Amino acid sequence: MNESKPIGVFDSGVGGLTVLRALRAAMPAENFIYLGDTARLPYGTKSAETVVRYSLQCADALIKRRVRCLVVACNTASASALGALREHHPTLPVIGVVEPGAAAAVAASATQHIAVIGTEGTISGGAYQTAIHRLNPAARVTSRACSLFVSMAEEGWTEGPIAEAVASRYLDPIFQNAGAPDTLVLGCTHFPALATAIRAVLPRHVNIVDSATITAAAVLQLVGGNSARVGTRGAVAWLATDGAARFARVGSAFLGERLDAEAIDIIDL
Amino acid sequence: MNESKPIGVFDSGVGGLTVLRALRAAMPAENFIYLGDTARLPYGTKSAETVVRYSLQCADALIKRRVRCLVVACNTASASALGALREHHPTLPVIGVVEPGAAAAVAASATQHIAVIGTEGTISGGAYQTAIHRLNPAARVTSRACSLFVSMAEEGWTEGPIAEAVASRYLDPIFQNAGAPDTLVLGCTHFPALATAIRAVLPRHVNIVDSATITAAAVLQLVGGNSARVGTRGAVAWLATDGAARFARVGSAFLGERLDAEAIDIIDL
Repeated sequence: MNESKPIGVFDSGVGGLTVLRALRAAMPAENFIYLGDTARLPYGTKSAETVVRYSLQCADALIKRRVRCLVVACNTASASALGALREHHPTLPVIGVVEPGAAAAVAASATQHIAVIGTEGTISGGAYQTAIHRLNPAARVTSRACSLFVSMAEEGWTEGPIAEAVASRYLDPIFQNAGAPDTLVLGCTHFPALATAIRAVLPRHVNIVDSATITAAAVLQLVGGNSARVGTRGAVAWLATDGAARFARVGSAFLGERLDAEAIDIIDL
Repeated sequence: MNESKPIGVFDSGVGGLTVLRALRAAMPAENFIYLGDTARLPYGTKSAETVVRYSLQCADALIKRRVRCLVVACNTASASALGALREHHPTLPVIGVVEPGAAAAVAASATQHIAVIGTEGTISGGAYQTAIHRLNPAARVTSRACSLFVSMAEEGWTEGPIAEAVASRYLDPIFQNAGAPDTLVLGCTHFPALATAIRAVLPRHVNIVDSATITAAAVLQLVGGNSARVGTRGAVAWLATDGAARFARVGSAFLGERLDAEAIDIIDL
């Protein structure tokens, strides 16, 4: 791999910035290009065929910019499009968030009863279930789509009574009974924004697995440390297919630092 | 106008089905083609340029199917794209939901202080404000984006404590003080689904304007009654750009009758 080339990251919008933040923390010297497909977000309620088509287009846009590997920072795209991406680009390393998240959950769970929450697309496709069973065929997986979490994260309503009431309505049926899961996978990059509200309604012993950090570790393992650039701070180039202003506003909250709105290109895929 | 041709209706997804339902009630003998741009929904958080581009493509798909007029059953598209649609299709009657809604609000309000709620795109574009001021330059307009209402309607969480808590959080700052508006325009086709929760948190005297019925009346006025077909029941052809199954499931709730999922085509715009 050419160490001077940037790492390409794409997501349907801003949610993947939680993954980018983890990547930068793990590999501060690396350069990144982040593409948010904001013109067509969300992917979570769309069919697998459409998500595959959009994902291949996002990949093409990043490959044109000569990335050294591709991180699919969107659970829905990871769940639906990873196979197609690898098939179309056999020499490019492609890493999704589902497989690392599944591995972390299997590692964390004492009972091997694991709960997964995500968008409709991620949950109905069953990708986490498949990935978990590949690692432990005896594991039990309980899953639920939590669509409203996405818009709550984007609206910034991430804490307080409404966020907790919504979390309760989604999660109580899973966790308020005997034999409930002991591990919860946040299978959507938007969900870590609601971690406080989610934690508040969960039984205390439940482990929360956030795939962002785990994915960053997997990417670091794949590309290796960049010893030639230790001590330097890598750059991030931003691409959004629509709405630079909104992307910068909502994205800054996800990234935990100010996004430079000037740096965003509008590209037509 | 050729009376045998269908009336074309488009929306970003299923929300416009509230408009279609009102149109069918007003003109039961007419044939309709409904196009839901489900592959790219929602329009409400996207830029005006993108919404214009998508709207022109939706119009082209319907015009290819020889519609006699075009109903833009989406507030965001009506707010952003009506001018472009009329410019590109100067001989085709194009009716949006914003102008009829604004007229109904001005007619209903005693104080001429009118509140408008809608998606981010509709509110930030100021289309209702402009339309209301064209009718009464002295009217006062208070507006607020209520993004979460869209996903709550799609999730079916339209009544009960969570729906009312969300409605309170959005609407109390507008209505809980002296000199508050006496009329509320539901400036998004998803919002009538939440009418019960919205009504529950509003002061009793506030009028609610739902643009679906008003728009149907405007279309009836434009195309006239179809006397040749009185007594017959018109047909509806369905088109969706993605996700026939989800469209049928969510759409049935909006339409108040079962959508025939078999009848949905996936078209690539």
